Amino acid sequence: MRVGVLTGGGDCPGLNAVIRAIVRKAERHYGDSVIGFLDGWHGVIEGNFTELDVNHMRGTLPRGGTVLGTSRVSPRMFDDGIDRVRATMEATGAEALIVIGGEGTLSAGVGVFEAGAANVVGVPKTIDNDIGLTELTFGFDTAVGIATAAIDRLHTTAESHDRVMVVEVMGRHVGHIATWAGIAGGATLTLIPEEPFDIEAVAEAISRRHRRGRWASIVVVAEGARPKEGTMELSEPEIDQFGHSRLGGVGQAVAAEIEARTGYDTRVTVLGHVQRGGTPSALDRVLCSWYGIAAIDAVHEGDWGSMVAFRGGEISRVRLADAVAQLKPVSPALYDVARAFFP
Amino acid sequence: MRVGVLTGGGDCPGLNAVIRAIVRKAERHYGDSVIGFLDGWHGVIEGNFTELDVNHMRGTLPRGGTVLGTSRVSPRMFDDGIDRVRATMEATGAEALIVIGGEGTLSAGVGVFEAGAANVVGVPKTIDNDIGLTELTFGFDTAVGIATAAIDRLHTTAESHDRVMVVEVMGRHVGHIATWAGIAGGATLTLIPEEPFDIEAVAEAISRRHRRGRWASIVVVAEGARPKEGTMELSEPEIDQFGHSRLGGVGQAVAAEIEARTGYDTRVTVLGHVQRGGTPSALDRVLCSWYGIAAIDAVHEGDWGSMVAFRGGEISRVRLADAVAQLKPVSPALYDVARAFFP
Amino acid sequence: MRVGVLTGGGDCPGLNAVIRAIVRKAERHYGDSVIGFLDGWHGVIEGNFTELDVNHMRGTLPRGGTVLGTSRVSPRMFDDGIDRVRATMEATGAEALIVIGGEGTLSAGVGVFEAGAANVVGVPKTIDNDIGLTELTFGFDTAVGIATAAIDRLHTTAESHDRVMVVEVMGRHVGHIATWAGIAGGATLTLIPEEPFDIEAVAEAISRRHRRGRWASIVVVAEGARPKEGTMELSEPEIDQFGHSRLGGVGQAVAAEIEARTGYDTRVTVLGHVQRGGTPSALDRVLCSWYGIAAIDAVHEGDWGSMVAFRGGEISRVRLADAVAQLKPVSPALYDVARAFFP
Amino acid sequence: MRVGVLTGGGDCPGLNAVIRAIVRKAERHYGDSVIGFLDGWHGVIEGNFTELDVNHMRGTLPRGGTVLGTSRVSPRMFDDGIDRVRATMEATGAEALIVIGGEGTLSAGVGVFEAGAANVVGVPKTIDNDIGLTELTFGFDTAVGIATAAIDRLHTTAESHDRVMVVEVMGRHVGHIATWAGIAGGATLTLIPEEPFDIEAVAEAISRRHRRGRWASIVVVAEGARPKEGTMELSEPEIDQFGHSRLGGVGQAVAAEIEARTGYDTRVTVLGHVQRGGTPSALDRVLCSWYGIAAIDAVHEGDWGSMVAFRGGEISRVRLADAVAQLKPVSPALYDVARAFFP
Repeated sequence: MRVGVLTGGGDCPGLNAVIRAIVRKAERHYGDSVIGFLDGWHGVIEGNFTELDVNHMRGTLPRGGTVLGTSRVSPRMFDDGIDRVRATMEATGAEALIVIGGEGTLSAGVGVFEAGAANVVGVPKTIDNDIGLTELTFGFDTAVGIATAAIDRLHTTAESHDRVMVVEVMGRHVGHIATWAGIAGGATLTLIPEEPFDIEAVAEAISRRHRRGRWASIVVVAEGARPKEGTMELSEPEIDQFGHSRLGGVGQAVAAEIEARTGYDTRVTVLGHVQRGGTPSALDRVLCSWYGIAAIDAVHEGDWGSMVAFRGGEISRVRLADAVAQLKPVSPALYDVARAFFP
Repeated sequence: MRVGVLTGGGDCPGLNAVIRAIVRKAERHYGDSVIGFLDGWHGVIEGNFTELDVNHMRGTLPRGGTVLGTSRVSPRMFDDGIDRVRATMEATGAEALIVIGGEGTLSAGVGVFEAGAANVVGVPKTIDNDIGLTELTFGFDTAVGIATAAIDRLHTTAESHDRVMVVEVMGRHVGHIATWAGIAGGATLTLIPEEPFDIEAVAEAISRRHRRGRWASIVVVAEGARPKEGTMELSEPEIDQFGHSRLGGVGQAVAAEIEARTGYDTRVTVLGHVQRGGTPSALDRVLCSWYGIAAIDAVHEGDWGSMVAFRGGEISRVRLADAVAQLKPVSPALYDVARAFFP
Repeated sequence: MRVGVLTGGGDCPGLNAVIRAIVRKAERHYGDSVIGFLDGWHGVIEGNFTELDVNHMRGTLPRGGTVLGTSRVSPRMFDDGIDRVRATMEATGAEALIVIGGEGTLSAGVGVFEAGAANVVGVPKTIDNDIGLTELTFGFDTAVGIATAAIDRLHTTAESHDRVMVVEVMGRHVGHIATWAGIAGGATLTLIPEEPFDIEAVAEAISRRHRRGRWASIVVVAEGARPKEGTMELSEPEIDQFGHSRLGGVGQAVAAEIEARTGYDTRVTVLGHVQRGGTPSALDRVLCSWYGIAAIDAVHEGDWGSMVAFRGGEISRVRLADAVAQLKPVSPALYDVARAFFP
Repeated sequence: MRVGVLTGGGDCPGLNAVIRAIVRKAERHYGDSVIGFLDGWHGVIEGNFTELDVNHMRGTLPRGGTVLGTSRVSPRMFDDGIDRVRATMEATGAEALIVIGGEGTLSAGVGVFEAGAANVVGVPKTIDNDIGLTELTFGFDTAVGIATAAIDRLHTTAESHDRVMVVEVMGRHVGHIATWAGIAGGATLTLIPEEPFDIEAVAEAISRRHRRGRWASIVVVAEGARPKEGTMELSEPEIDQFGHSRLGGVGQAVAAEIEARTGYDTRVTVLGHVQRGGTPSALDRVLCSWYGIAAIDAVHEGDWGSMVAFRGGEISRVRLADAVAQLKPVSPALYDVARAFFP
């Protein structure tokens, strides 16, 4: 069998580990040939690909990035996008297409599958952990680890200087990274998109803490956190060419408000791209390997339109269309844990 | 309410994080007073304890070890063990006892609860991840991360010297650490207690790999891995005063057999206690915080004899007696992933 | 003997390790009593201090921050600053004052010493490594390690997305961190204050690299790097209340210029305070311990006005006034190494 | 010019970084062609080599191991060893040979150079840091970091269980790793080859500490540490085929003696090969890059028989024969620091 693979969307630790797992089982167990489309959907649309084999993937398990490149291009951006995908699948002889990506990339996969242009199996990738019907997307654990290590370091500066440190982490629509890193890092407060914040309550909580004799605080803010209407000004983030907001807006704004309202020296750190690159954590490497094996198994069972998912400690399959139908919010019980520490 | 806490069994990253979470929510939300029994069940039996409060636990979230000390002492070791537990609970006024431990410590908790000597709530702790009815015990993710980092480093030595490196990791009865670290570290072979190994097949797999031009291999061996009967000699491990095997036996034996059968230079590394100490991973800190909050909640709901458990991405509760009834083995699907890479 | 200690200036990994070493040798070997002034020179001026002993410092070796707090206050900020220092030394009975700090804090020490207000011994602290007459200041190695780890992660994002990543690191007046992290991280270009850069040459070097088929580049920029006059606009950085520039100005500006001149997607990461907090590296812990021991030895030899220094693989002493007379620039030979990689 | 490179002796973090630096400056600056001999001196003797260029070395800066392989083979092991080296140099047209290795590999380089068989320049590599006339060999800082991280983790186990933890680290003839990691890790005692230890004094120091209420201790032991004559039995370590001792002997013996003499539960951890593999620290990457650039510069200046060395914060050159004439011991002043903490 001939199987195509693509990686789309933002860089994410573990992409290579998924590809490697697919290639190994495909080649060694099923006797497949595997091709990798270059730069996400762009490679499928343009017919750019490379042959992949076990030797090609050697040494890539711990390496960040993706040997295939990535992009945010989607067939939907072209009038004849779907037709070009179909044409490429026919021209390359690929009978299946494993799509590794986040909400945007996978949604494009749904479109392609529903149009009958390719036999699609999805693998949920995003450091944001916001894909539905799976408890974990790969890259998330690594991102949380990086953010937590940064917060660990900021604590000592906060304490040595009696400062409030605001840390902006990734999370445009949901606050998984913020909530996990906030709890793991012992943050005083954690602000996430799911719950608009009251800046006055934020300032008051910090002042109350300081009055108890704790003069240093860490506030973790997801990039997509927003104030309750009418409580503070926040200009809309500048949007770049890929539809992504430039980072730093909400972190800067929250820091400025805290300093203005409390009088405490307040600094902001915007973690940015360091959260999405580099070697995957051990957990992510296991998850990626498992996802890759499960994806090539799904291909051989002809379970088209499915997505591999991590549920209940095992890998299962869900419908890809269902998984991307809506973003997965942070568990309210877990956000309550974040709040329990500094009430 | 007055609540007692104990930590028992081997050192495990995250013990302090659980205690800290319990104390914070108990004091700040419920207005409880919390006491910590010293050195596990020993402290309950002897009536040794310390008052715990939020200030006491400050700064302990990232710190390994346990501020309460630990031991492998159990009420079962004393004729009047249960009575002494009852007496201590009465003398201290503690209305509930949160037991943080692995199979041995929690089983003692079942005995104490069933005898009516204390109102017990359990928290599953073990780097081995072998407690039933929970997908994760805390400490496991940290141990896997440490073992994987070590394997990452051993790869380059294996490759530079064309060597077989045998790495013995913890796991007396089950091979969770070995399987996860083996997959994450890209091990050639992983041997676990759940599946007795055939040393001849191990040697043959390595030779086959070398014949394909790959002259370096990593073999991960759980300390409890055992050969199929009749295939190789393995003396029973020396047992120390706590009923624990001295490490290194099976790793050494497997390395010697591989070297003898293949002729390849083979070295062994026994990871030992570094796997169970030090700062917890971000995931473990979140898990510990969540467990601690959930445990004090269970106390206030009077759900005695329960254990907090991680299932399906959320915390739920199971019966403690059921959880310790049998060890949780490695998922066969996951062990198949480990095997898929180097068939 | 009664000895005072203070830590001044910005947070820096290893401050506690120096204090711990001083206290241990002072108490155990010399039988001294040690007091710690709070919040740098502020504590000396105000007479705020705490007694320090071995128990007090237990567990602090790996911990970032400073148990004494810090500030940028200097006796020079007060008309009677020197007199108040003298008064505090007399009131507390402290016969010597160990001053742990960077250029500002140590310069104040020179003033105090030369005015005869205290018997001063200096310890060179700064992540910037810009103190003269010592090859290493503590905190620098840790900062370089953090910056390098971040660059390692940014590489994969740069490569996956064919991007230019600009990384702004600390270094207001000198480019030690930038040069070391640039070399260690495999940066394409490194811009430091010692050598004003030509933005057109920067853009041209990146374009040339891309024409050779390498579409990803990392540019490391010290916060104090400045363009050659007339080559590009760079507004002066906003200065905060401590005379420190707000971060991010030059990084943002360089990224914008590169994107405008080359057309390549370019992003900026400002590492900020994560570089100066958290646990010190092993090397910094050794250096701090050695500095602390050497400082208390200098006190007992009455070598007032001296600074302990790392030279030629050993600790020696130099005159504090000489050490702060001028900042130590990056070795031209080492900066040539940085340039050798991507000519 | 045509230049040969070899890497010999044990695996060491940073070998690739040195090769990469040589190749980059050789190709880009000098227009040289570089060949890499395979498996150390073995490749020179057998005439096995590979062409090296910038593309070949891409991505290797952070990667442990050596792309050239290594061995402990030496021309001295063959009657016609020197002649074969000469023949290979002539056959390959290599006008210079950069020898990257430790004492054994470099000593062979002296022999080859003095026999006029090749124009040799040496680069000092060893995690043991025992080469003379250089303050630092590469790989050492990484090894110290790994050992320190392990000791950090062992502390919590020691404290949770009131145990003595003995940690055996590398260092057959000198105790640099032990001394640095012992100080950085806050070890109670550090035993090194330079100072034979009195096991009774060791046991007494631990008992004294315990009597002061500190029930946990870490003892760092270099693999080559030896007891004072007559104080305790220590069988000579088993020697493997490469003349290297099997690890673990002295650590096990010291642990057994401590347990027997003090009665405290005592465990041993043998760090082994994890100390010598994997990604180099930032400092080692800088040092390696600098060494590589300096080595190819030395070649072009025709400074045959020299070794690049790190002295006084800069790279200089020394005579290779002098550098290997005797091992560099630990600075007594630094060992005093190790002893100052727990007198």
